[in-house]
Amino acid sequence: MSTDLKSKFLKVYDTLKSELINDPAFEFDDDSRQWIEKMLDYNVPGGKLNRGLSVVDSYQLLKGGELTDDEIFLSSALGWCIEWLQAYFLVLDDIMDESHTRRGQPCWFRLPKVGMIAANDGILLRNHVPRILKNHFRGKPYYVDLVDLFNEVEFQTASGQMIDLITTLVGEKDLSKYSLSVHRRIVQYKTAYYSFYLPVACALLMFGEDLEKHAEVKNVLVEMGTYFQVQDDYLDCFGTPEVIGKIGTDIEDFKCSWLVVKALELANEEQKKFLHENYGKKDPASVAKVKELYHTLNLQAVFEDYEATSYKKLNTSIENHPSKAVQAVLKSFLGKIYKRQK
Amino acid sequence: MSTDLKSKFLKVYDTLKSELINDPAFEFDDDSRQWIEKMLDYNVPGGKLNRGLSVVDSYQLLKGGELTDDEIFLSSALGWCIEWLQAYFLVLDDIMDESHTRRGQPCWFRLPKVGMIAANDGILLRNHVPRILKNHFRGKPYYVDLVDLFNEVEFQTASGQMIDLITTLVGEKDLSKYSLSVHRRIVQYKTAYYSFYLPVACALLMFGEDLEKHAEVKNVLVEMGTYFQVQDDYLDCFGTPEVIGKIGTDIEDFKCSWLVVKALELANEEQKKFLHENYGKKDPASVAKVKELYHTLNLQAVFEDYEATSYKKLNTSIENHPSKAVQAVLKSFLGKIYKRQK
Repeated sequence: MSTDLKSKFLKVYDTLKSELINDPAFEFDDDSRQWIEKMLDYNVPGGKLNRGLSVVDSYQLLKGGELTDDEIFLSSALGWCIEWLQAYFLVLDDIMDESHTRRGQPCWFRLPKVGMIAANDGILLRNHVPRILKNHFRGKPYYVDLVDLFNEVEFQTASGQMIDLITTLVGEKDLSKYSLSVHRRIVQYKTAYYSFYLPVACALLMFGEDLEKHAEVKNVLVEMGTYFQVQDDYLDCFGTPEVIGKIGTDIEDFKCSWLVVKALELANEEQKKFLHENYGKKDPASVAKVKELYHTLNLQAVFEDYEATSYKKLNTSIENHPSKAVQAVLKSFLGKIYKRQK
Repeated sequence: MSTDLKSKFLKVYDTLKSELINDPAFEFDDDSRQWIEKMLDYNVPGGKLNRGLSVVDSYQLLKGGELTDDEIFLSSALGWCIEWLQAYFLVLDDIMDESHTRRGQPCWFRLPKVGMIAANDGILLRNHVPRILKNHFRGKPYYVDLVDLFNEVEFQTASGQMIDLITTLVGEKDLSKYSLSVHRRIVQYKTAYYSFYLPVACALLMFGEDLEKHAEVKNVLVEMGTYFQVQDDYLDCFGTPEVIGKIGTDIEDFKCSWLVVKALELANEEQKKFLHENYGKKDPASVAKVKELYHTLNLQAVFEDYEATSYKKLNTSIENHPSKAVQAVLKSFLGKIYKRQK
């Protein structure tokens, strides 16, 4: 993406924020306006913005030519809706996971002035999405589909979060609940729909397409989102901390990671027992033992194999798509994540 | 409302629940289905159901005749959407307020198996509303308006909750932040829109009306909702605990109650100082002192005066409305709350 397009995207944030803190549906005063402004600046624009930018990218590839100012603004606004949705998930996830830092700063709810008010701020972030949609898309022929789309994807994300929470947290730590199929469901619903399908679906709607006719695009993107999360799980253990920007703690946190479900699949009885004994323990010795088993089971090679197979399969699906423009959109996504190191 | 209509309303809950736990947008398994079912049964139907039932009531008054089975089902479904919305607010409010009980049972997040998962359950409750609307209203001419209505009212409620939280919680306990205008804004946005305006707006939309043409109905209902909350504040201190079903703690909790803002308005400098010293303290002696001051300032008579004036004003507004059917709806609401003791 050109730096010009990115700087235009960033400017749209200021416009949207200013509209939200002057929304006529509520009587703002200085205190509430300042609260919202601080809350938005703290939580919305600080990420990599990949999801948001990819709406503009995708729309441009669909159109195949220069975008008008109006098209740049509208596709950016949709991109920001996804960033707002993401901020809402993260603010609430951090409360639920009792996290400490996010994007290199304390989690919003950790700020002494904020605390549990963060839960309501999460709700406000979520409520901003339909406000933005109404402000800028109410008259468009695809308005209802857009609103339905955001609602459906949010529902899927919250449902994915639910199975993650009840699998990981409820009752005893029990590895036998983990399997490839549980992992696939968590990842598909919690991450893939909103991170991969939603941006492209937004661009397609804005381009005048009927989403009902694009079931295959959805399948490819959900598949890609799953592959993306498997990479994430892999990098958490085998990535370079300086490159990925954090020290992975999936093993300590008893996460339903692709690595542990693969390990369970490949392990013999003795190795399984060993995993059950050491997975999800905080002490470094247990963590090291789990990593050692991952090496013994050759999970790095298993991952490389998975990566190659996924890539091939995704490419074939993409090339089978009748539209060259849609192919370009999907290839752009795949190109950005294939063999990523961070 | 007839007991027949109420029992039909209650049956609609089972239908909606069953649709939600079989929603094709998510791959449910037994665990997740059971979780949702338990969560819904615990949080949704246990209240007085006034808001939900009033949609059916209002629709019947607008129509002025027997309802068809389809009309009963649809107006009940809209009523349940409001109950779902309410459940979502309560689950999250209880977390934010660190409450212990709700509707005579432990708050959902207090259950050992639930804990912070309750935050995601709140989100799921919220997500169920657009699922219900989509399942049953997607083809209706008023579908977009319905979705917009729920979004706007939720935004207003969350905004009201925000000013309540930042006024009551942020920084020092400072009575000088409290005033009639702050109280009015909190009450109007946090309670009146979703409890009074939303049910009638749902009925009007289902009846084919254009909400843009009913600004006056909105004003009357928001006014009524404000009056309702003032009663609530009054009963918290002066009501009979056995009748209202709880022992009020607004004084201890430093709530921005109508009583304290009225007291601040009527007090002389000495009495104000006295209030500043004793309001929001847990010890029974301070609470008793505040109550004594309320008596000295004759707040019971001030309230009776407010009640009589509100009633008269509301009645005049209602009688000025051109439609007899709409008048009947508004009068039914007013009749239910005027001089209520619980």
